[in-house]
Amino acid sequence: MAAEGALPATRTPTLGSDTIVISVDAMGGDLGPAAVVAGCAVSAQRNPRIAFILHGDAAELERQVARKKHLTGRCEIRGTDSVVTMDAKPSYVMRHGKGTSMWSAIDSVRNGEAEVAISCGNTGALMAVSMIRLRKLEGINRPAIACLWPSRNADGFNVMLDVGADIRADEDDLLQYALMGTSYARNGLGLVRPRIGLLNVGTEEHKGRAELKVANELIAAAAPAGEFDYVGFVEGGDIPSDRVDVIVTDGFTGNIALKTAEGTAGLIREFLRSAFAATPLSRIAAMMAFTSLRRLSKRIDPRRVNGGVFLGLNGTVVKSHGSADATGIAAAIKLSVNLAESKFSERLAARVASVTLARQDASDQVTESTK
Amino acid sequence: MAAEGALPATRTPTLGSDTIVISVDAMGGDLGPAAVVAGCAVSAQRNPRIAFILHGDAAELERQVARKKHLTGRCEIRGTDSVVTMDAKPSYVMRHGKGTSMWSAIDSVRNGEAEVAISCGNTGALMAVSMIRLRKLEGINRPAIACLWPSRNADGFNVMLDVGADIRADEDDLLQYALMGTSYARNGLGLVRPRIGLLNVGTEEHKGRAELKVANELIAAAAPAGEFDYVGFVEGGDIPSDRVDVIVTDGFTGNIALKTAEGTAGLIREFLRSAFAATPLSRIAAMMAFTSLRRLSKRIDPRRVNGGVFLGLNGTVVKSHGSADATGIAAAIKLSVNLAESKFSERLAARVASVTLARQDASDQVTESTK
Repeated sequence: MAAEGALPATRTPTLGSDTIVISVDAMGGDLGPAAVVAGCAVSAQRNPRIAFILHGDAAELERQVARKKHLTGRCEIRGTDSVVTMDAKPSYVMRHGKGTSMWSAIDSVRNGEAEVAISCGNTGALMAVSMIRLRKLEGINRPAIACLWPSRNADGFNVMLDVGADIRADEDDLLQYALMGTSYARNGLGLVRPRIGLLNVGTEEHKGRAELKVANELIAAAAPAGEFDYVGFVEGGDIPSDRVDVIVTDGFTGNIALKTAEGTAGLIREFLRSAFAATPLSRIAAMMAFTSLRRLSKRIDPRRVNGGVFLGLNGTVVKSHGSADATGIAAAIKLSVNLAESKFSERLAARVASVTLARQDASDQVTESTK
Repeated sequence: MAAEGALPATRTPTLGSDTIVISVDAMGGDLGPAAVVAGCAVSAQRNPRIAFILHGDAAELERQVARKKHLTGRCEIRGTDSVVTMDAKPSYVMRHGKGTSMWSAIDSVRNGEAEVAISCGNTGALMAVSMIRLRKLEGINRPAIACLWPSRNADGFNVMLDVGADIRADEDDLLQYALMGTSYARNGLGLVRPRIGLLNVGTEEHKGRAELKVANELIAAAAPAGEFDYVGFVEGGDIPSDRVDVIVTDGFTGNIALKTAEGTAGLIREFLRSAFAATPLSRIAAMMAFTSLRRLSKRIDPRRVNGGVFLGLNGTVVKSHGSADATGIAAAIKLSVNLAESKFSERLAARVASVTLARQDASDQVTESTK
């Protein structure tokens, strides 16, 4: 904290009233604070309305910020003593994490100083700290992490959740994921009436685990009031399809699917590179197709879809990939700004509250009618 | 049955004593018997030791076989009256499936007339019929479906199981999958000492569901006697990696991962095609890189890895993709022949029996020592 106000770069941001303040855990990433600050600089240059509160090693952050002219006067630095490591157990961080850059970054959202917090750190620890500092939304049992998935849809993305907040999800959790996913697709992707699908091993109604069959009915029943369309069960091959906008699943399955897709894309990129390096003619062809191939590479670049959003908390937290570079960090910041601008957090809370009330009313009525 | 012996093509195959007889459900595929018979002809041309028993509409099959000179004298046709549809419930097919081409194809393995059965039909029904006609191996609780997965390994493939035989698997099932996967990798891929990994959402030992933590210990303990190396937990991104040869998971997760990978590869193929069609220059480049791109396309072509093998039954059954064309069918036949040649079915049974005995001995000893 001693570092506050020591340099122009560390002043509390005092931009216009429409400034969007993003709280950034600058220490969590594999590439260190330099990559995080570089990503902030890219975003600051692109969008003059963003300001940052950076949490971490004050001396190091001041040095990094001083080197980026676009960050002058737009960053406040909060010095912290320690860092959550990638292998730290969430339960340990919950008890002893005060004083870490991650904890401090979440507290800026808790205190209302920032609209969104971003961290590249340990996912489990970030969720644990977010849960105890921001608390779950009234009516939410398990928060979820939603990610954007490259797809055949017009805007190029589908939403998938949960991709790893919790390894379990029962039928009620899956219904809540459908509602939260609807809210995210509406505010993050601008879809008025998102199409929701429930991930399963087949599209027939008799397939899959027991909780999926119940969730299938719960989500279908919630569709009219929730103002979304329910397309029923979808399979792994449908995740990037244009017949659905939001794919709902438990965090175990979602995490495996996400990493499998990233692994597959990585393998094909490697095969493609070696195919083009195979012969002199193919090397010339690769040069000729350079622009087209770069466009392709951009479409499937995981850095461009960086940012898992924690849903179901009192406040928005964005988890960036641990290995994110400046491009990846800038993508996560852009997503955070979109969500802050659409007042996503308040809208999501309102949606969950209204459906929770409606379900309580419905079950009250059932109770009364069976008396 | 009336059609038997009516034409040269329908004679019981009478090749040399080293002939490998494959039983083929010719009716199950989306493209009909013509595609299946065409696939058989491709295989017959490549390998003079293969003969077929084809099950299905006798008149139609005789017509198709008569058009393929490589099949002359190498096919026996078994006329059947009905077909298992893609949406048939497994429980219904178990009770009423007698007389279908699928049932008849499995019975040829049961009766010892053929070494392997192949079907493009409904997976659930095929597993159900295989279970009641072939019965589970002694010591196996849940059979599994194993598939080949394109990978960075020298031979180009990893093995993954279960990819959809059963949506559940407890710790004992996962141990059995590790043993069966070892046997498959040894006989199907020729790996002397396969490396086994257990799919989870992280590689740390404290992560994942309860049954995964127990399975992690069981598989590690079985490694020395089972003559495989256990690499511990692996993540979705490791499935195509060269740090593992066999990936063990439950059938729900495995099926989602497989279809997600296929969907991702399909999306990238589309993006690649549109990237090369984007400009006149990129179209010329595509022509120049034609050979290299075709090699790439072959490496990620799902038809080339067609064939899920049912493990844990008294006999080998290969499930081909429903949409398989002649190339896909030929790949499934090639896989079947490899497995038949290595006496896979007997070796797998011996392996499971020896480990089951060892576990029984171990638990008997525990029981005795605690007396």
